[in-house]
Amino acid sequence: MPKFQSKELIKITRRIFIAAGTPEDIADIVAGALVKANLIGYDSHGIWRITRYIMRIRNGGLDPAARPEVERQTNSVAVVNGNWGFGQLGARLAVEYVSSLAPKCGVACVALHRTNHIGRVGEYAEMLASEGLISMVLTSVAGQDRQVAPYGGRERVFGTNPMAWALPVRAPRPPLVVDFATSATAEGKLAVAMSRGEQVEPGLVLDRHGNPSTDPNSFFDGGTLLPFGGHKGYGLTLMIQLMTNVLTDYENGSYRDSRFKNPSLFTAWSVEAFMALEQFVGLVEDWLQYIKRSKTAKGFDEILLPGEPEARTFAKRSKEGIDIPEPTWREITAIAGELGVSI
Amino acid sequence: MPKFQSKELIKITRRIFIAAGTPEDIADIVAGALVKANLIGYDSHGIWRITRYIMRIRNGGLDPAARPEVERQTNSVAVVNGNWGFGQLGARLAVEYVSSLAPKCGVACVALHRTNHIGRVGEYAEMLASEGLISMVLTSVAGQDRQVAPYGGRERVFGTNPMAWALPVRAPRPPLVVDFATSATAEGKLAVAMSRGEQVEPGLVLDRHGNPSTDPNSFFDGGTLLPFGGHKGYGLTLMIQLMTNVLTDYENGSYRDSRFKNPSLFTAWSVEAFMALEQFVGLVEDWLQYIKRSKTAKGFDEILLPGEPEARTFAKRSKEGIDIPEPTWREITAIAGELGVSI
Repeated sequence: MPKFQSKELIKITRRIFIAAGTPEDIADIVAGALVKANLIGYDSHGIWRITRYIMRIRNGGLDPAARPEVERQTNSVAVVNGNWGFGQLGARLAVEYVSSLAPKCGVACVALHRTNHIGRVGEYAEMLASEGLISMVLTSVAGQDRQVAPYGGRERVFGTNPMAWALPVRAPRPPLVVDFATSATAEGKLAVAMSRGEQVEPGLVLDRHGNPSTDPNSFFDGGTLLPFGGHKGYGLTLMIQLMTNVLTDYENGSYRDSRFKNPSLFTAWSVEAFMALEQFVGLVEDWLQYIKRSKTAKGFDEILLPGEPEARTFAKRSKEGIDIPEPTWREITAIAGELGVSI
Repeated sequence: MPKFQSKELIKITRRIFIAAGTPEDIADIVAGALVKANLIGYDSHGIWRITRYIMRIRNGGLDPAARPEVERQTNSVAVVNGNWGFGQLGARLAVEYVSSLAPKCGVACVALHRTNHIGRVGEYAEMLASEGLISMVLTSVAGQDRQVAPYGGRERVFGTNPMAWALPVRAPRPPLVVDFATSATAEGKLAVAMSRGEQVEPGLVLDRHGNPSTDPNSFFDGGTLLPFGGHKGYGLTLMIQLMTNVLTDYENGSYRDSRFKNPSLFTAWSVEAFMALEQFVGLVEDWLQYIKRSKTAKGFDEILLPGEPEARTFAKRSKEGIDIPEPTWREITAIAGELGVSI
């Protein structure tokens, strides 16, 4: 498996996007975001996406030179139009806006619509937390690529609809970020299991007839993913789907719209509207230490906080480099070749 | 099992609370809220609570005549002090405030602290949705009565920390309300299983040594509840605990504070800040019909929306009356007798 330092990967990624018509400043942002995802261990949101994004540029779904704009802003709410450019750009403008509104208003919310894949949602929650805000980022996969059945159902009604939630913490503690898909598993994990000829745990997948299955093939053969946590996760998935599709993508929030998109809602609560930030991060630190030092269950050596596994992977990969699986590397080399980029 | 019409239960409940020093208008609200919970099938939040509330009045934790007040309000944020009265009162004032702020600001948030048990969180989410707001209500069980272990842990670090989430829908559709505890099960359900000598499913409980258990006794014998949905539910539980304890109960958000309380955060997004409410509820209705008519999985006859089971129980119990388990009824009769209330 080839191994790279993050700097090399950023350079390669950036050159590929530039060759595909992306302005340099935009290519910097997208390359940085993808490689950052690899650095913290979210390989499904890393440079594996390069070829997917290039394909969307080619089929007209993604305008690599488009820039997002704030369509309107009233009091504590704003709407950002992604103009079908890179989602990472629209999401950054949304973060910028909600960061400027929340301290003034106490709580603020920015909707992002007409957007491509925004990448790792936890990234935005983390940015907002570093500004002294409590943040919640909700995204749905809308249009094509819905994969998740309702509780009791067997059709691909919902996206994997991730949510991210973060709180400010006291340095040097790593960011406290909850970031998860509301599906019980992800397509990528099933693909890995399938390629290894392995079965998966029960409770993740239904086959095309609506029967529980542990065979990853059954998902690819017309089956569905299940929501995590039974009817509770179903409730979350449903609310995220409706809240982001209908409210956020207010121009066309219908389930009939088949265009792939990632409509998103960024909400931030200003800690200072309630109490001094210093007092807040002190009390949070106290809680986190209490959680960390509580006794472990059988089979566990340690209690991990949300964000800790990512911080450890980041430290390790920053030092040792990032392994890129052969098939991903072949794909990237091929697309680079097509674009005349030698890597 | 004795059976009552809701009106009778409200009358009885109200008289008991009045005899315990509750002003009539407050007794009306609390009695109505508890019996409403029974009507929709949330018996754990119904009149079973009467004796628990009376005990809190007796031990000084609940001042039955206290009224909540808005401590401060800045832009889109307000803080309500429950003054240690009935939580239902403080929560209603929070709802009133967030309902008045959200349409003006776009999004608004009210924190409730110094509060007793607020009851069923879905009730408040539902009230807000009926005003054209998308609502999220977060509550933690703080101080005494924490019961849930972190993922990988075996100590009672977190409360059962419920969240409720609701959207406006088009009449006559019943309210679309997601309302669940972030624990995998509830003490009440374990008590029922224990009284019947039944085992419970795996994944709900650890014994005092941190071993997985299906014996409900092991929880009562120093064990813990687990979060629902593994590390994802743990992430939610943790965020709700910190967000409501530290941010909401800003005077004393420490884990060391042992007083039982239910600090809560009410956030509401005004649909009209994004799009016309009529268009929103139309698109939501369209989605809901699409979800309802999607095909069912094996073992299911129907896909239920969040709130549908409750609406059906409400219709049935409104007509047929509410069964009250013998032990609950004996408790209520006893406490009524002590207070000189003949029922």
